[in-house]
Amino acid sequence: MSADLLVQKIKEKGNPSVAGLDPKLEYVPEYIRTKSYNEYGRTLRAAAEAIWEFNRGLIDALSDVVPAVKPQSAFYEMYGLPGEEVLHRTIAYAKEKGLYVILDVKRNDIGSTAEAYSTAYLGKVEIDGEMVSPCDVDCVTVNPYLGTDGILPFVNDCKKYDKAIFALVKTSNPSSGELQDVLSDGKPIYEKVAELVNKWNEDTIGSSGYGAVGAVVGATYPEQASAIRKLLPNSYFLVPGYGAQGGGAKDVVNSFNDDGLGAIVNSSRGIMCAYKKGDWSEEQFAEAARAEAVRMRDEIVSVIK
Amino acid sequence: MSADLLVQKIKEKGNPSVAGLDPKLEYVPEYIRTKSYNEYGRTLRAAAEAIWEFNRGLIDALSDVVPAVKPQSAFYEMYGLPGEEVLHRTIAYAKEKGLYVILDVKRNDIGSTAEAYSTAYLGKVEIDGEMVSPCDVDCVTVNPYLGTDGILPFVNDCKKYDKAIFALVKTSNPSSGELQDVLSDGKPIYEKVAELVNKWNEDTIGSSGYGAVGAVVGATYPEQASAIRKLLPNSYFLVPGYGAQGGGAKDVVNSFNDDGLGAIVNSSRGIMCAYKKGDWSEEQFAEAARAEAVRMRDEIVSVIK
Repeated sequence: MSADLLVQKIKEKGNPSVAGLDPKLEYVPEYIRTKSYNEYGRTLRAAAEAIWEFNRGLIDALSDVVPAVKPQSAFYEMYGLPGEEVLHRTIAYAKEKGLYVILDVKRNDIGSTAEAYSTAYLGKVEIDGEMVSPCDVDCVTVNPYLGTDGILPFVNDCKKYDKAIFALVKTSNPSSGELQDVLSDGKPIYEKVAELVNKWNEDTIGSSGYGAVGAVVGATYPEQASAIRKLLPNSYFLVPGYGAQGGGAKDVVNSFNDDGLGAIVNSSRGIMCAYKKGDWSEEQFAEAARAEAVRMRDEIVSVIK
Repeated sequence: MSADLLVQKIKEKGNPSVAGLDPKLEYVPEYIRTKSYNEYGRTLRAAAEAIWEFNRGLIDALSDVVPAVKPQSAFYEMYGLPGEEVLHRTIAYAKEKGLYVILDVKRNDIGSTAEAYSTAYLGKVEIDGEMVSPCDVDCVTVNPYLGTDGILPFVNDCKKYDKAIFALVKTSNPSSGELQDVLSDGKPIYEKVAELVNKWNEDTIGSSGYGAVGAVVGATYPEQASAIRKLLPNSYFLVPGYGAQGGGAKDVVNSFNDDGLGAIVNSSRGIMCAYKKGDWSEEQFAEAARAEAVRMRDEIVSVIK
């Protein structure tokens, strides 16, 4: 019911970053794709199995460096049912390797439906008296546009099953300001969302000092991150936008608290496609990913201490 | 690239309503559940197969009455991979029966990820030169909190593949006002979203007069619906909240234009659980659903003409 587990894993690895697993097919080394096409034809299954082999290699190489992985559901849903199946396989494998799993789904709906989404990823569903876990992750991302009654079902499952969520506050994309920066009484909407996040978080705070309800705050908006950091002393930040989206180490520093905690920085393409830069061969994709994850860790740790 | 197909189906059936397929397990008649538990045990597969049998019966009974069905993804994701598989099966079956399929997923993300979500449901994915459809529906719901660059990928696929989307504007739930009603320069956020919807919609308008980008406007907020209707003359409205959530026929009338078009009203529980009211037996669930769909059609048609 807090961010304690995430904080523990971050401390164990000495690394406040998370490897995003957003496997576009063009990220997967060609030799893996070719092998899969030869076995399964030009099918969704072929794409999904190629992604699985890529993910497994990445997880094996990264599991002693990063505390967490963040699969982005869209890139699995894009390959239909085989893609979904590989998402579930990837999640199970990452958990087996001791990684904290943040499933990036940005789900949102009215209360009773939000409850179903929360059950799907954080909770358990009752089937004739038997409690079954449909897809067991540690944490999901959620969209706050529907207000409190679309979020509380997730918070309840955080309390019940010791899980966590990150709510979108200020996203990393160029047009995020169209709604998020709209001013009301001199205050941008993202600050109103931050105030709600603080309220949702308040009775979930664990021994780490951080609660179950965190915030997504893009690395591409470092000034806004400073303002939001002040509003949310007890919330963890999930920080996308580092690397390929243009955010650097100095841009993420505002998302951390003075204790060196409070944020986990995501890199997806930078880590997954590291083998495409420098002198790596395709077959070295996992080593290249590991080297980039180490470089990123050292860079971030150097600026926050 | 417009709402023409939806309008055509609504006119063919003389019915501006959609049957929501939100199959909570407790909605499924007990005799179906028991049969499934006997065959598959107390498993996600058993739950999913029970839902499939329920859905198939509903679709068979409703396909000559309603123009469209709206499966709510949460209630399938809640049963894990077997649930996802039954969602795909339900979609394919509904399309086979000539129904327009609105998949209620409320997806949202930054541009490149929104593109992946759009590909998943509206588009096609390239696999070694082969274009494959991962899950082919007519329309999805989307959440606008990330602004234009999270929506344009969907609009592009609407143009390319003749699809449509509904963006959340004013949702039906009690706390929808926490963010959606916040005033900026005297104007609520949902009106700002409506203005964005109008812009996204403007170059997608078909011969029906309606474009590809519609709005979700809850039946529970009829006054706001009037205001939004004026801002969006060429957008279709998807209207949840009728029936079980408290909205009546008089509350949905504001979402229609003077041409008797412009809105499609959703009922989920009211139709799916019709057999639980009155003198129906469990085995008559499909007949009861059909009778309720006919009653709802007649009620709505009577108020809009």
